[in-house]
Amino acid sequence: MAGSDVSAERLRRLQAGMAQANVDLAVIAPTANMRYLLGFAPMADERPCALVVSCDGVGMVVPELNADHVEAYTSMVPVRWTDVAGPRDAFLRVLGDLGARPGGAVAVDNSMRADAYLLIQELLNPAKSIAAGELMAALRMRKSADEIEALAIAAAMADRALLVGVEHCTPGVTEREVAGRIADSFRAQGADEVNFTIVGSGPNGAFPHHTFSDRRMERGDMIILDIGATLNGYHSDVTRALHLGAPTGEEAAVYDAVMEANRRGREAAVAGARARDVDRAARSVIEKAGYGPQFLHRTGHGLGLETHESPWITSESDTVLEPGMVFSVEPGIYLAGRFGVRIEDIVVVTEGASRSLCGLDRAMIVR
Amino acid sequence: MAGSDVSAERLRRLQAGMAQANVDLAVIAPTANMRYLLGFAPMADERPCALVVSCDGVGMVVPELNADHVEAYTSMVPVRWTDVAGPRDAFLRVLGDLGARPGGAVAVDNSMRADAYLLIQELLNPAKSIAAGELMAALRMRKSADEIEALAIAAAMADRALLVGVEHCTPGVTEREVAGRIADSFRAQGADEVNFTIVGSGPNGAFPHHTFSDRRMERGDMIILDIGATLNGYHSDVTRALHLGAPTGEEAAVYDAVMEANRRGREAAVAGARARDVDRAARSVIEKAGYGPQFLHRTGHGLGLETHESPWITSESDTVLEPGMVFSVEPGIYLAGRFGVRIEDIVVVTEGASRSLCGLDRAMIVR
Repeated sequence: MAGSDVSAERLRRLQAGMAQANVDLAVIAPTANMRYLLGFAPMADERPCALVVSCDGVGMVVPELNADHVEAYTSMVPVRWTDVAGPRDAFLRVLGDLGARPGGAVAVDNSMRADAYLLIQELLNPAKSIAAGELMAALRMRKSADEIEALAIAAAMADRALLVGVEHCTPGVTEREVAGRIADSFRAQGADEVNFTIVGSGPNGAFPHHTFSDRRMERGDMIILDIGATLNGYHSDVTRALHLGAPTGEEAAVYDAVMEANRRGREAAVAGARARDVDRAARSVIEKAGYGPQFLHRTGHGLGLETHESPWITSESDTVLEPGMVFSVEPGIYLAGRFGVRIEDIVVVTEGASRSLCGLDRAMIVR
Repeated sequence: MAGSDVSAERLRRLQAGMAQANVDLAVIAPTANMRYLLGFAPMADERPCALVVSCDGVGMVVPELNADHVEAYTSMVPVRWTDVAGPRDAFLRVLGDLGARPGGAVAVDNSMRADAYLLIQELLNPAKSIAAGELMAALRMRKSADEIEALAIAAAMADRALLVGVEHCTPGVTEREVAGRIADSFRAQGADEVNFTIVGSGPNGAFPHHTFSDRRMERGDMIILDIGATLNGYHSDVTRALHLGAPTGEEAAVYDAVMEANRRGREAAVAGARARDVDRAARSVIEKAGYGPQFLHRTGHGLGLETHESPWITSESDTVLEPGMVFSVEPGIYLAGRFGVRIEDIVVVTEGASRSLCGLDRAMIVR
């Protein structure tokens, strides 16, 4: 299908979902949702910009300085607003063209800026506002063969960048330097964007969302590398842990528990199972090893046009896994002030067993 | 002042502003506003995370996996929520501790995610919600001497990266390649983050928010380079235009108009003037040259912990300029399908004339 046909088909599916959920209007910001629906989103800033979808129509409000760009890359003809006029009249015109009335139900892009949402709320006065996340997830959660191929290529890029990172971890080098080498590798491989480079050495590994610091690595450190970049719009995300010098018995035990939890989680990721089954399979291994309270987060998250998207692999989620769903299995154990271990694969649900997009070994890397 | 004293002082100033504006509660997401108030913001994702400020108290709701990080880098003791429990109870506890009641007035961080705001709206049911932008601008708009020094260092970094970009612009090279060299330069200089690298060659220069593409540069191209990165938390932003080969008469005339508009804008940026005076000074040059409708945007924006922040240099803004304000003066002319020119300096308002943080020449670069 040509790009605009894909876009029209996706918009029709959103409209069908809205009709079923009794949602009158969906307001989509220049996020991954807009990229999914239109194949393009302009460079977003604080200027309100939105795709507005009703059950039988679609309109778009775009700042003047982004409007030619939108017309060049999509089939939309947006209503433009200038910095002089401000966005109000443009929004009112699009809402009017779509027959939107106060008192309806509006689905709002989850990561829209609050100030844009406040404006829409003021102009439209909806009776009910919900996050658009579930509507969009219904469209985006099951990836097409083309999308899975794009994710596999992005994953292979991340594997190579991770090995570059491992290569540079040695006593005396800073986390920042290793993060820089990883970013260099991503860029040399043509990444659109380097999304994150977590290099958590020693006690910093116990912060799941550490980025990197000027800490110098030391012999005896456990080190978490968790990295991701975008290639052709699709994201990657992979985590491995390595150790400088021989691990202690406790470090080895923690590592083994995480590695086994990763394996059990992947094995549980089969079509027909529920997302919570994957979480349970991974979490129970870590609980049995005595580290349940130190597994600080859900087992995983979907991956696609965003690093974090549906399905969410949590203890409570009853989402039924279907072929084409793509998500992380990333159990971890975090011992505050000491070290952390996390091992993350991205898996694709197929008719049979899940398939990992990660080609890296999972045994502890000792350097 | 030690970091926590700065933080306490800034929170007190916010509370004073809230009391004056009859705002009961401010809810701040992990954005530049949080970094300004606490000196730190955790790596944000879709999990709701907020600093909640009342006129006489402060609380914080943080996902479990970010909480140790927040405690390590700030003096806050956040209420934590886990992926199992979800954020509701944690928010209710913090709102309860602060004595927040339904029906009050809430100021919401402008770039908070809409889904986080929808949750707060549901839990608190405020009578009135406003964007926190003006309250925060009152704190952040006038930079301290330390902040201006940080911005000057970041600007010098951007100047060097821009010259690297110019060096690589030559027929046959792609915009993407030049963007990559600019990003390399930023990183080699220790940038925390490369925020944007606009390389708009030929017709792409007519999209003000073009990023970069695989277009190969050609002799006769006008090329806009507009780049920015963060150093020690402070942002940079600089734009110059260059030409491959001798410019046509029209290209030279457009360039000259923009250069003169940049000069007039900078000259108008004096303490006591209004933001709109700067816009008018720059815009009138371009209007007189016959290109008014092709100057598609405001003349500038503030710069600091964000690339775009207050003050906004628009035709309507009556913000009075004060010493310590830092903003861009960046007039441009965009001829759709053909080329664009934009020349951007970051200026600091002082007691006398404004001072540019940009050390680059403004005459057209011809290669």
